Amino acid sequence: MLTSPDPVPTELTAPGAIRLGANQYGKAEVRLVTVSREPDAHHLRDLTISTALRGDLADTHLTGDNTKVLTTDTQKNTVYALAGQQPVGEIEEFALRLGRHFVATQAAIDQARVLVDEHHWRRVAVAGQPHPHAFARGGGETRTTAVTVAAGQAWVVSGLRDLVLLKTAGSEFHGFPRDRYTTLPETTDRVLATSVTARWRYQHLDVAWRAAFEEVRACLVGVFADQHSRSLQQTLYAMGEAVLAARPDVGEIRLSLPNRHHVPVDLTPFGLTNDNEVFVATDRPYGLIEGEVRREGASDPGLAWHTLPAF
Amino acid sequence: MLTSPDPVPTELTAPGAIRLGANQYGKAEVRLVTVSREPDAHHLRDLTISTALRGDLADTHLTGDNTKVLTTDTQKNTVYALAGQQPVGEIEEFALRLGRHFVATQAAIDQARVLVDEHHWRRVAVAGQPHPHAFARGGGETRTTAVTVAAGQAWVVSGLRDLVLLKTAGSEFHGFPRDRYTTLPETTDRVLATSVTARWRYQHLDVAWRAAFEEVRACLVGVFADQHSRSLQQTLYAMGEAVLAARPDVGEIRLSLPNRHHVPVDLTPFGLTNDNEVFVATDRPYGLIEGEVRREGASDPGLAWHTLPAF
Amino acid sequence: MLTSPDPVPTELTAPGAIRLGANQYGKAEVRLVTVSREPDAHHLRDLTISTALRGDLADTHLTGDNTKVLTTDTQKNTVYALAGQQPVGEIEEFALRLGRHFVATQAAIDQARVLVDEHHWRRVAVAGQPHPHAFARGGGETRTTAVTVAAGQAWVVSGLRDLVLLKTAGSEFHGFPRDRYTTLPETTDRVLATSVTARWRYQHLDVAWRAAFEEVRACLVGVFADQHSRSLQQTLYAMGEAVLAARPDVGEIRLSLPNRHHVPVDLTPFGLTNDNEVFVATDRPYGLIEGEVRREGASDPGLAWHTLPAF
Amino acid sequence: MLTSPDPVPTELTAPGAIRLGANQYGKAEVRLVTVSREPDAHHLRDLTISTALRGDLADTHLTGDNTKVLTTDTQKNTVYALAGQQPVGEIEEFALRLGRHFVATQAAIDQARVLVDEHHWRRVAVAGQPHPHAFARGGGETRTTAVTVAAGQAWVVSGLRDLVLLKTAGSEFHGFPRDRYTTLPETTDRVLATSVTARWRYQHLDVAWRAAFEEVRACLVGVFADQHSRSLQQTLYAMGEAVLAARPDVGEIRLSLPNRHHVPVDLTPFGLTNDNEVFVATDRPYGLIEGEVRREGASDPGLAWHTLPAF
Repeated sequence: MLTSPDPVPTELTAPGAIRLGANQYGKAEVRLVTVSREPDAHHLRDLTISTALRGDLADTHLTGDNTKVLTTDTQKNTVYALAGQQPVGEIEEFALRLGRHFVATQAAIDQARVLVDEHHWRRVAVAGQPHPHAFARGGGETRTTAVTVAAGQAWVVSGLRDLVLLKTAGSEFHGFPRDRYTTLPETTDRVLATSVTARWRYQHLDVAWRAAFEEVRACLVGVFADQHSRSLQQTLYAMGEAVLAARPDVGEIRLSLPNRHHVPVDLTPFGLTNDNEVFVATDRPYGLIEGEVRREGASDPGLAWHTLPAF
Repeated sequence: MLTSPDPVPTELTAPGAIRLGANQYGKAEVRLVTVSREPDAHHLRDLTISTALRGDLADTHLTGDNTKVLTTDTQKNTVYALAGQQPVGEIEEFALRLGRHFVATQAAIDQARVLVDEHHWRRVAVAGQPHPHAFARGGGETRTTAVTVAAGQAWVVSGLRDLVLLKTAGSEFHGFPRDRYTTLPETTDRVLATSVTARWRYQHLDVAWRAAFEEVRACLVGVFADQHSRSLQQTLYAMGEAVLAARPDVGEIRLSLPNRHHVPVDLTPFGLTNDNEVFVATDRPYGLIEGEVRREGASDPGLAWHTLPAF
Repeated sequence: MLTSPDPVPTELTAPGAIRLGANQYGKAEVRLVTVSREPDAHHLRDLTISTALRGDLADTHLTGDNTKVLTTDTQKNTVYALAGQQPVGEIEEFALRLGRHFVATQAAIDQARVLVDEHHWRRVAVAGQPHPHAFARGGGETRTTAVTVAAGQAWVVSGLRDLVLLKTAGSEFHGFPRDRYTTLPETTDRVLATSVTARWRYQHLDVAWRAAFEEVRACLVGVFADQHSRSLQQTLYAMGEAVLAARPDVGEIRLSLPNRHHVPVDLTPFGLTNDNEVFVATDRPYGLIEGEVRREGASDPGLAWHTLPAF
Repeated sequence: MLTSPDPVPTELTAPGAIRLGANQYGKAEVRLVTVSREPDAHHLRDLTISTALRGDLADTHLTGDNTKVLTTDTQKNTVYALAGQQPVGEIEEFALRLGRHFVATQAAIDQARVLVDEHHWRRVAVAGQPHPHAFARGGGETRTTAVTVAAGQAWVVSGLRDLVLLKTAGSEFHGFPRDRYTTLPETTDRVLATSVTARWRYQHLDVAWRAAFEEVRACLVGVFADQHSRSLQQTLYAMGEAVLAARPDVGEIRLSLPNRHHVPVDLTPFGLTNDNEVFVATDRPYGLIEGEVRREGASDPGLAWHTLPAF
């Protein structure tokens, strides 16, 4: 039995009344593609949108009275209707429009949280010329936003995920403690690879969203490439620090960096040397380095991070 | 602070000093299979384990000094070594052993969080007899635990995921509001299907882990099956309420219930009627109903939920 | 340049006229769930269906004339309409109905191939009693059929996939050749695990489909469990041989058996022994053993295997 | 033989002797990353390799005698060893080296089939300059080859997969037959999207592999973009025809084109019009158009396509 040395209570807590706690509901992964047919060229947007509403929702939980439940089907329809009324704009703008619509029109709804993922397409080149209406999917990297709207307030946490980076120089890992279970050799030259998930909070809404995204992304990529790394933690911090230095409107950034291990293959059994040229890329397990870099005195994050992943 | 209706600050917040915020690191998805070779039959355990450590980790982030970084490779080795020292026991027990080991042996480490997933295998029957050493994978449902250990304390949040349930009667959905974007018809007889993700916190550690798990699972399944449902929210609350009623040692439970829509096919264009017998099962989008059911006066959750998904 | 010793032609083959070769088209992954509402209990079927048509289809390929193209949308509608007309029955029966419908009603269509996957649900037990209308998904194992229909003919290849089996005794692997790149130690006691994909051809259509499936599955599982294995190839052959011995109506069976390696962890660096009790389950790479077991003098397979995976 | 309408033989086919049929075995999904450290810049290659051997393998199947079984572990080691001996070169070259090695060194092995997938990375730009040693994953598109080696012969089928293309103009679909189950409206302006899987056979081995690949890919993309499409079948044929016209060394090409439906959303219930600007991108079901375009008088394909997917 798992007691000492932990000060584990050995009596049951007296049971109390059972209550509804925090909750939200919505429609997840609504797929929206829009085409803007301008004279010279078509423009394509490809979004996946998830909405969640919070508010006075005890009735449906306790009695099944749905009087205050704007259905998730209606939430989906609203995505398409708002996209049909005017161009979606940047994903932050569209998420704000959606969230404000729900909070403004539903008396029972106090808060709306809207997630938007943007999938990248690039214009195809044919005979060296950009094509007016043909596109190719641009890979797995996704631009994201998570917007929360309450009465008279809104918070924007933007980000990206599946940005897979690798460097073949400028990465060491040594000086770590060795206990009885440590077998890892130290290295002064390793391949460093990761798939970046990043989320950063804007301290206000007066942002040129696309330009800000591009600048943050450039910081992340530039630091990964150029910083001499003694640990992936050091790289994480430097990436976050660069973003905060470049963008005073960012209050904090959270990064999740899996360490996608590339292990040099031991070729000596085959009479060969391996001068750090032949690697096996492994799937599992992987290191996972997660952290926040924050600005002292940043604005109150309020509900910005509520229900988002910790990293 | 952002106030109504959309008073966006046009000045940048004055930048402050940049700091390291919350962080953790570890090895994710270590795959461990153990065999216990008893005289009459072999016993099989199949676990996926992720460890994360927290503590005095500023050095590696700020300067790349790894003196306090027990490597993720060592964390992986520790999983295997501890599994080799004694039987793993229930997943909560093994997670506690692992977490306590890290906190006890690493001066810089204040907290350890250990996730364990258990994958189900069932003993194969041959000629009607259970086989002594052959097994079949039991499907996607996974038993989980998330254990957090700090000096002299530990918290256990156990759960399950990918428990896919469906009922063909006893589910209605009507009485919801209709706005200009509502097109969904009301129904008094629908197929209700979901994939249950549940996590519940034990208020102490003096628990018969397996029996507790089985009782919680039976509550979830039983209520889903038997309760007449007017909304998936009502079902969520009833499932949680049943768990808390049955288990006084559970302080709160969090449930995430995707609504896997099964839409009756309109066969009238083909001169056929569909008496709720033919459905299309849709992938995306899906409803997503999430909530917590909690006990008043439950013990302080402390770090139990830190960095876990909100639902 | 890659020439000698291979007798590679060094002149270009003179280009000839360009022609349309083999082709087919259809609707893939139509999701069909049916409920049969009998007085005592409901019955649930969950199928994924893919149809493909072949025939006089040159026009649409060469000129875009779609006069002979029964649209894939209509194929989807036909799946639902036929499911609405009468119970689907066994998956082989439903696939035959669908295939015959297309060939009988479309003058341009010579052949139809219908794939049906059946997903398993089990009735939930509540308080020890099977529930009349609540079900739980039964895991990843899938029953399959691939039916080909031509004028006056039909062929049935049934199967299963994702049947994941593991044995902790009765498996050796030694006696293999050692070349300069061989490092694998021999073993007389290893964990053997695989995910079975099997397809077998029935020589006629007068089959009790469900009973036949159950018998084949029992053969596969029973031999895997009971046969002492010196190689996964030996196990593959014995599994196939048992099926053909039990079912004279099966002409041949094709098996694809990934070898899901479970590698004993070397605990000696930690001062521990590992008596074949602690394993790491690896994802990639994996062995892949594939083969056919066939009956001499079996009926002509005709189109049965056309466009199916080789193993 | 099965004749119309359903003349099922009621006697079983007389059982014959049971025999081993076609078979192969190997190691699947070996992950190989190589770095070439040249003075000005590093070069990165990222490959996934699967080997399969065929030959005199009855012993291991029938008796478990492994004397002729070069283990799959050795096959994996050989991949790394050959990569360590000299640069891998183009994927076709490396596959040929591997296949020839196995056939040349193993007396029992008659044939080797080697699959290589190449994953794309692009050099990162920092401050507008290409970085010497940092890379970003280039998305899901994969270049492939399937090489078969026998004594004194070799066949190369190269290809690509997961090239996702979409056009917002130049696609119609009408003129198709309407039966009692047809509900699809005709359209003269639809979004056409697909994920291209293509495989083409080179008639000899004296090919500039990379340039050939680039030319084939440009043909596929260019025709998809520029050809006015009346059906995806027409597009498929035109894509294949363009490849064969451009590359006399290609004997035939096989294409598998899922039709990723983008359905215009009906906004009329919301008082809005949708001028082909707002779409829902659907996952399942999807159309699937598959076909071969071949050259009359092409060289005998021999074993080139053996065990590869039909399309």
